[in-house]
Amino acid sequence: MSLQKPSLPRGTRDFGPGQVARRQYIIGIIRRTFERYGFAPLETPSFENLSTLTGKYGEEGDQLLYRVLNSGDFLSDVTPEDFSGGYRKVTPKVADKGLRYDLTVPFARYVVMNRHQLTLPFRRYQVQPVWRADRPSKGRYREFTQCDADVVGTDSLLCEAEIVLMIHEVMTALGVPYVLKLNHRGLLRALYQTLNDPAPETDLYVALDKLDKIGWDGVTQELTGRGFQPEAAAHLQALLTQATFTFTPQAMAAEGALRELRQTEAGATASAELGAVAEMLTDSGFGGWANVQLDLTLARGLSYYTGCIFEVLVPGGGVGSVSGGGRYANLTEAFGMPGLSGVGFSFGIDRLYDALEALNLFPADLDTLTQVLVVHFEEPATRAAALRTLAQVRAAGFSAELYPEPAKLKKQFAYADAKRVPHVVIIGPDELAAGTVKVKTLATGAEQTVAQADLLATLKEM
Amino acid sequence: MSLQKPSLPRGTRDFGPGQVARRQYIIGIIRRTFERYGFAPLETPSFENLSTLTGKYGEEGDQLLYRVLNSGDFLSDVTPEDFSGGYRKVTPKVADKGLRYDLTVPFARYVVMNRHQLTLPFRRYQVQPVWRADRPSKGRYREFTQCDADVVGTDSLLCEAEIVLMIHEVMTALGVPYVLKLNHRGLLRALYQTLNDPAPETDLYVALDKLDKIGWDGVTQELTGRGFQPEAAAHLQALLTQATFTFTPQAMAAEGALRELRQTEAGATASAELGAVAEMLTDSGFGGWANVQLDLTLARGLSYYTGCIFEVLVPGGGVGSVSGGGRYANLTEAFGMPGLSGVGFSFGIDRLYDALEALNLFPADLDTLTQVLVVHFEEPATRAAALRTLAQVRAAGFSAELYPEPAKLKKQFAYADAKRVPHVVIIGPDELAAGTVKVKTLATGAEQTVAQADLLATLKEM
Repeated sequence: MSLQKPSLPRGTRDFGPGQVARRQYIIGIIRRTFERYGFAPLETPSFENLSTLTGKYGEEGDQLLYRVLNSGDFLSDVTPEDFSGGYRKVTPKVADKGLRYDLTVPFARYVVMNRHQLTLPFRRYQVQPVWRADRPSKGRYREFTQCDADVVGTDSLLCEAEIVLMIHEVMTALGVPYVLKLNHRGLLRALYQTLNDPAPETDLYVALDKLDKIGWDGVTQELTGRGFQPEAAAHLQALLTQATFTFTPQAMAAEGALRELRQTEAGATASAELGAVAEMLTDSGFGGWANVQLDLTLARGLSYYTGCIFEVLVPGGGVGSVSGGGRYANLTEAFGMPGLSGVGFSFGIDRLYDALEALNLFPADLDTLTQVLVVHFEEPATRAAALRTLAQVRAAGFSAELYPEPAKLKKQFAYADAKRVPHVVIIGPDELAAGTVKVKTLATGAEQTVAQADLLATLKEM
Repeated sequence: MSLQKPSLPRGTRDFGPGQVARRQYIIGIIRRTFERYGFAPLETPSFENLSTLTGKYGEEGDQLLYRVLNSGDFLSDVTPEDFSGGYRKVTPKVADKGLRYDLTVPFARYVVMNRHQLTLPFRRYQVQPVWRADRPSKGRYREFTQCDADVVGTDSLLCEAEIVLMIHEVMTALGVPYVLKLNHRGLLRALYQTLNDPAPETDLYVALDKLDKIGWDGVTQELTGRGFQPEAAAHLQALLTQATFTFTPQAMAAEGALRELRQTEAGATASAELGAVAEMLTDSGFGGWANVQLDLTLARGLSYYTGCIFEVLVPGGGVGSVSGGGRYANLTEAFGMPGLSGVGFSFGIDRLYDALEALNLFPADLDTLTQVLVVHFEEPATRAAALRTLAQVRAAGFSAELYPEPAKLKKQFAYADAKRVPHVVIIGPDELAAGTVKVKTLATGAEQTVAQADLLATLKEM
């Protein structure tokens, strides 16, 4: 065994104590919200058969899948011809498992495998890491955590309304400013039909999705490059002079681009659906109207979604979208179970973390893990008293430690400082003889001496 | 994309809602106990560089490591000579990462990489899945979860005493009967020295470790087969006529095999250490003496441990040990940082789960996720009332759902039954007109009608 300087694989991270506490803080808020809305937890294995994963994420996704080398002699099925045929030919023979790439495909696989036991509609949430062999960069990791919630087996727009409610509750509980952007596949289709141009529909969405980054000049260039008539591009820009609307029942009924889009059947249906969602939010006493926008240029995941689409941004957070989702018509079709509609969304923990950190929104006390340090003195009688006290403090629910050795006081206090322990309890020979305890609060330097019997009450007061 | 019947990789499992709730119940108790003892959480990446993992788990462990295929053209460095040289030659060129095999090596790697920032002694806990390409069997999975707690940077026997306290607290909180077996490397060494036989020391431990399974005849045969004199084997058996002792300060001071083992230096030191642990437990008011045994035949992990050794069994649980650990002298030596002593232990969640299930010890209400189902009626006014009520019930902290569609009552109640929702809230046209709410408790069939304003108080009472 040779000595080595250890390192982490690129794109992965350790989470030390403070980071885990902050991540658990975010995950706890999301988890409790999901559960209050009746979503039940699901966990799936970290690796799946590659037959489950491949072909579900497009060609680019297939390349980003992490494959797990078969155990034992993984070359046993590889012929010299395979070998000279290159790695694409060899891959399926040396790896039959891959790491989870998202939480949606494993969920679909689970629903199909358990379809006879599941009660529909089925609401599940899932908080687990996923892995992608992407090029690492700021905010983009090879291992990151997703928090998904989906309802399958119902077309009810109540689910869409509840997604808006849950996003509002989570972002409000985190104290983070947000913008929730909404759109509907039917409005995009109506946009395409209104342009009345034979160029391919999806090319419109691809171009529109870039508006944020490239502006109208860029979108126009992109569209004409993809075969749209300059008139169509101009019509689009004129139509979308106002592309975002406050999402209230009143605004939904008002004039503007929406009025023109409602002339098509797709647009009329989509507009009615969004109106129904807004109405249910009103009945629910929704308090986040100011944060929600209908954005006709939002075109994410269009190959997949069939109804409402969601995206959540954090202004000033320095990250992309922290949440997104939408309705899909055919979650489980690839596994031979067509016609199962659903709607779902996902929070990205890592991006939420970065946004909260950038905006300095984490509560200050998340760093406090140990609440009480008991000082360790040399004399056996003081140690016995310390152990007795320690047991009492822990039994009362406090997180507490006895410094493991009778080290110099300075060293024990430095340890408490470094661990940000708020209170140090001292039972030296004098205190022991007097039946007292000294409690020192490190942040202020304040010291108080109390009767041993009053220690727990004193700590609870603090 | 061809249709396919999906399946799970062998040795892996989905955890549905009830199972996740039960696993979280166990993990929650362990986590809260670790935190009350001042252990801080750490999370490390799911894959590590293979240079970090290989050579740490013995030859068998290396074979059980899951390797992650390099991305892109993984064959680019493989020559035809490598290929004809077989898979062992090819492995290091096609995979440079491996899945986490345990939580100890990543912890050691973390300590070394962060040694300049860490305050010693460092107490960390870690709850994460690990992966082993083992042959799956009952209770043995390829993905399973470990819960480790370690203290590094101190020799204090307080850590050993606190491990006993934590095991007792966790097993007591879970309500599961247990036997905690203790031994000490020094007592095993003393045993070997007392036999005064030139056969290799580790062969004694290997044989002794099998006593449970093969009995004394088997151990004698194993020892003589490994070169021990028949007299040494007979001496061993005589010495260990009584091999287990109640672990109290009194029993530690008493006669028997311990007296003979204390004649050697290793035995005297070990015995004094165990005595000190027992004394600290006494001072801590330890209440689990009846569960703790000193077992001179316990010889687990001997290549690794250097002081106390722990193992926890659940009588009648139908599983092997559910927890184990010990003191080690050189956690980080393989990473170029010698002399860092520590002590740690681990709970196996999957085995604890199986034991609790076998003994029927899970609390009954873990299956309840949604506490209240609100019935969905056709009339718009009743839906508005339902949505308002739903928002209030959730704001009060209950987990609640509105059935997503105005389906037949029978269907809505069947859904509540299947999800084990305890209470169904009904606001039909009659109730709406009367300003009342009907609450039905499914377990008893009891129904009560209360004023709308009293609903939350009624639910809280239930």
